[in-house]
Amino acid sequence: MQPRSADDTGLQVDLDRLPDHLGYLVRRLQRWIFKDFIQTLAPFDLRPAQYSVMTVIHANPGRSQMAVALALGIERARLVHLIDGLQARNYVERVPSANDRRSHALHLTRHGGIAFDRIRTLAAEHERRVAERVGPEQHKALLRLLAGFADG
Amino acid sequence: MQPRSADDTGLQVDLDRLPDHLGYLVRRLQRWIFKDFIQTLAPFDLRPAQYSVMTVIHANPGRSQMAVALALGIERARLVHLIDGLQARNYVERVPSANDRRSHALHLTRHGGIAFDRIRTLAAEHERRVAERVGPEQHKALLRLLAGFADG
Repeated sequence: MQPRSADDTGLQVDLDRLPDHLGYLVRRLQRWIFKDFIQTLAPFDLRPAQYSVMTVIHANPGRSQMAVALALGIERARLVHLIDGLQARNYVERVPSANDRRSHALHLTRHGGIAFDRIRTLAAEHERRVAERVGPEQHKALLRLLAGFADG
Repeated sequence: MQPRSADDTGLQVDLDRLPDHLGYLVRRLQRWIFKDFIQTLAPFDLRPAQYSVMTVIHANPGRSQMAVALALGIERARLVHLIDGLQARNYVERVPSANDRRSHALHLTRHGGIAFDRIRTLAAEHERRVAERVGPEQHKALLRLLAGFADG
């Protein structure tokens, strides 16, 4: 048996002004969502940022790293790192650009395309769980309210 | 002059299903909010998680690390790391608990309390900017929709 400890974890903690900070609430929701995403996508060991990159490359084959980084609002160095990981798993390939030797055109490999079909199904399953967790009406309202942040 | 490069960054990129994923939108908003928070709090070099911890200790002096970690929904190891940083800056002190030798009661130091007054003012200024950015009505709607995630 564990000795009974005189701790205070059962007592109410006052969060004071934290719930008035959108960043605090958004961060807590984001942590919950990402955890569920990672669990759902565990068969592919895929994180949300990798999924975003694969989605954009799938929908826009042949675009440059810079274009994808801009579209996702992430730094180029971070995208290069993400692409390195996806390339090591043979999901993505960099094809040297004919126009600009410094630039590479991004494509899903055949293997990446096959994986992406299944990844997409799991991501949709994850999103259904998110909608359940926040409530279907709230989910719609949140997508609408946050839409402006999808493009910068 | 920079040579004109044949890049594709000016072309529209299709985000496909990403804007239907709440996690994608929430993450983009969170990045924007955290960036503004860090800039606003630059005089104190304080990150959002450190601010959350100081807020909870300020409002609940004497509580244990476990209680604070549970209230914020973060792992105990992460909180210990955050407290280490705040203690090194003489903002927070751990007072050995009389009841439980394994436990420490958390307090702001006098120096931490004085800093926190000013930190709080800057955090409120940051929040006004967030409300401006998302729109005052949207800000209220988002706080209401996300309130459930403030307590786990």
